[in-house]
Amino acid sequence: MSNIIKEFNDYRSRMNDAILADNNKIIKRIFNLDTNAFSEGALDVKTKELLGLVASTVLRCDDCIKYHLQSCHEAGLSKAEVVEALSISTLVGGTIVIPHLRRAYEFWDALEAQN
Amino acid sequence: MSNIIKEFNDYRSRMNDAILADNNKIIKRIFNLDTNAFSEGALDVKTKELLGLVASTVLRCDDCIKYHLQSCHEAGLSKAEVVEALSISTLVGGTIVIPHLRRAYEFWDALEAQN
Amino acid sequence: MSNIIKEFNDYRSRMNDAILADNNKIIKRIFNLDTNAFSEGALDVKTKELLGLVASTVLRCDDCIKYHLQSCHEAGLSKAEVVEALSISTLVGGTIVIPHLRRAYEFWDALEAQN
Amino acid sequence: MSNIIKEFNDYRSRMNDAILADNNKIIKRIFNLDTNAFSEGALDVKTKELLGLVASTVLRCDDCIKYHLQSCHEAGLSKAEVVEALSISTLVGGTIVIPHLRRAYEFWDALEAQN
Amino acid sequence: MSNIIKEFNDYRSRMNDAILADNNKIIKRIFNLDTNAFSEGALDVKTKELLGLVASTVLRCDDCIKYHLQSCHEAGLSKAEVVEALSISTLVGGTIVIPHLRRAYEFWDALEAQN
Amino acid sequence: MSNIIKEFNDYRSRMNDAILADNNKIIKRIFNLDTNAFSEGALDVKTKELLGLVASTVLRCDDCIKYHLQSCHEAGLSKAEVVEALSISTLVGGTIVIPHLRRAYEFWDALEAQN
Repeated sequence: MSNIIKEFNDYRSRMNDAILADNNKIIKRIFNLDTNAFSEGALDVKTKELLGLVASTVLRCDDCIKYHLQSCHEAGLSKAEVVEALSISTLVGGTIVIPHLRRAYEFWDALEAQN
Repeated sequence: MSNIIKEFNDYRSRMNDAILADNNKIIKRIFNLDTNAFSEGALDVKTKELLGLVASTVLRCDDCIKYHLQSCHEAGLSKAEVVEALSISTLVGGTIVIPHLRRAYEFWDALEAQN
Repeated sequence: MSNIIKEFNDYRSRMNDAILADNNKIIKRIFNLDTNAFSEGALDVKTKELLGLVASTVLRCDDCIKYHLQSCHEAGLSKAEVVEALSISTLVGGTIVIPHLRRAYEFWDALEAQN
Repeated sequence: MSNIIKEFNDYRSRMNDAILADNNKIIKRIFNLDTNAFSEGALDVKTKELLGLVASTVLRCDDCIKYHLQSCHEAGLSKAEVVEALSISTLVGGTIVIPHLRRAYEFWDALEAQN
Repeated sequence: MSNIIKEFNDYRSRMNDAILADNNKIIKRIFNLDTNAFSEGALDVKTKELLGLVASTVLRCDDCIKYHLQSCHEAGLSKAEVVEALSISTLVGGTIVIPHLRRAYEFWDALEAQN
Repeated sequence: MSNIIKEFNDYRSRMNDAILADNNKIIKRIFNLDTNAFSEGALDVKTKELLGLVASTVLRCDDCIKYHLQSCHEAGLSKAEVVEALSISTLVGGTIVIPHLRRAYEFWDALEAQN
């Protein structure tokens, strides 16, 4: 697995474990909701992952972008589809989003390279 | 046409006209990009409108939410689909989004009522 | 009851009812979490309401500010305590917070006037 | 004086008076800093007012935008200069800024009309 | 002292010194206000530090979170109290806050470990 | 060239190339607009660069701050002018901006040191 992917996932799992072990009820339920919200419903998983990606991008959260890029990749979305979602994010969110776009491209390329 | 819809659209058209008449090149091009970004490409129009709705909701812009709710409605999206997009927005964006959710429900109901 | 308080509460209840009647599982759970998160735990209710107020103020959400001002008032917090929380919010959030501070003062005065 | 200008200024003065009468030391000092920060220094007043306008616009605060539009107008800035600052704000801040741009144009036109 | 704590504090002091040496009056006064705003008043220091932590967390500023976690720790707040403040922040600010929550847990554990 | 400047510019060029090679029409046009928006018009280049710097600072985007600091430096703006723009950003944006101010000072000093 590529370095930037592995580093991201290792830190994420390790700290998620620490947070959930701490047993705060509100935080645990928010984590659960997160799983539920992105499973198939009126909208399919691909669409929901794109929604998560756009929300993360306009709010400019690199870790959230990486997480949703990874799920988009697993859900079988193509680069063209992902990039269109990112282009809408950059238009709505402004050029302030561009540095996050750079890191998103880098991460997506790492995801494709590891196959 | 319902009052809150008509009011929103009238003010929006009137001021968009004033802005475009002013002829600032950067602003005009951003307006053009907005039209292009939401037309069919690798993603279809319905998906793109949902992406626009989520971006608007997590960034908490009532007018942008109204605009995309209207386009979602015209594109034939169901309330269930729109509400799922709003639920993801509320989860990612937090309870700070709830006041905008209230106004989104009100506007959507007005859109359905006018048919 | 003062006008701005009554208007706020009426619209809030009416639209919350519409949202909850719609029965989206994610949104309903977020509403439930909201009730749980502000009840007594390691921190008492007064402290938690001040935390909710500060979060709402730095994120510049007028309706959320009003809601937490009301709960602060009901929890028996004094104006001096509430204003100190608002002053920290203005310092951390910047002068961009000042318009919300104006509306917060107006709403708090209405809350005190109605007793 | 035009209605939207008068309404804005009346509410602003009335609530600023209420806030300053309350005598919270932190808030009073922040209000003082605000006056100092925009007076002539290494940068002239016109440039500083444009900086205040751009900060207010990308942070999407209508009242702050109105305040700085008014000061820009008093400082003798032309519509072309103000609109260029707004165009940079819309590009950096994204299309989410457009609803604020509409209200900014409306307010500026009111400022010009009252002369 | 743990690495992440020492690194944070060293860079912070070094750059604060550089900023204050530069002698910009507005910036110096903002730094002073910061000290005043968090000292005992109508609210005690513990409550104020929690307010600072929540403001920093919903605004998603890692360095500000670290700074207030450190002050919370020095003020004698327990992990349970701090985590409740963080849970409110995550609920109000949304899941976009979670990456900052991870880093907050890591930093708090480092603070506890160094005793 | 100093390390932090070189690192920033190398990564930026490399990823901008990757983004532009990808040929998404919306993103390419946004990149073009960025060049146009900051060239001389009703406002001169120096003023526009300060506007870009303030927008980047209140929106708390380190990479955008670095980019505009570099352009400010190239446009011949003095440290005193740049710091006044940063002081307005810190006042309007709040103490949450301070960590970005630290990194801005560090980057500016690197820019001056490399001459």
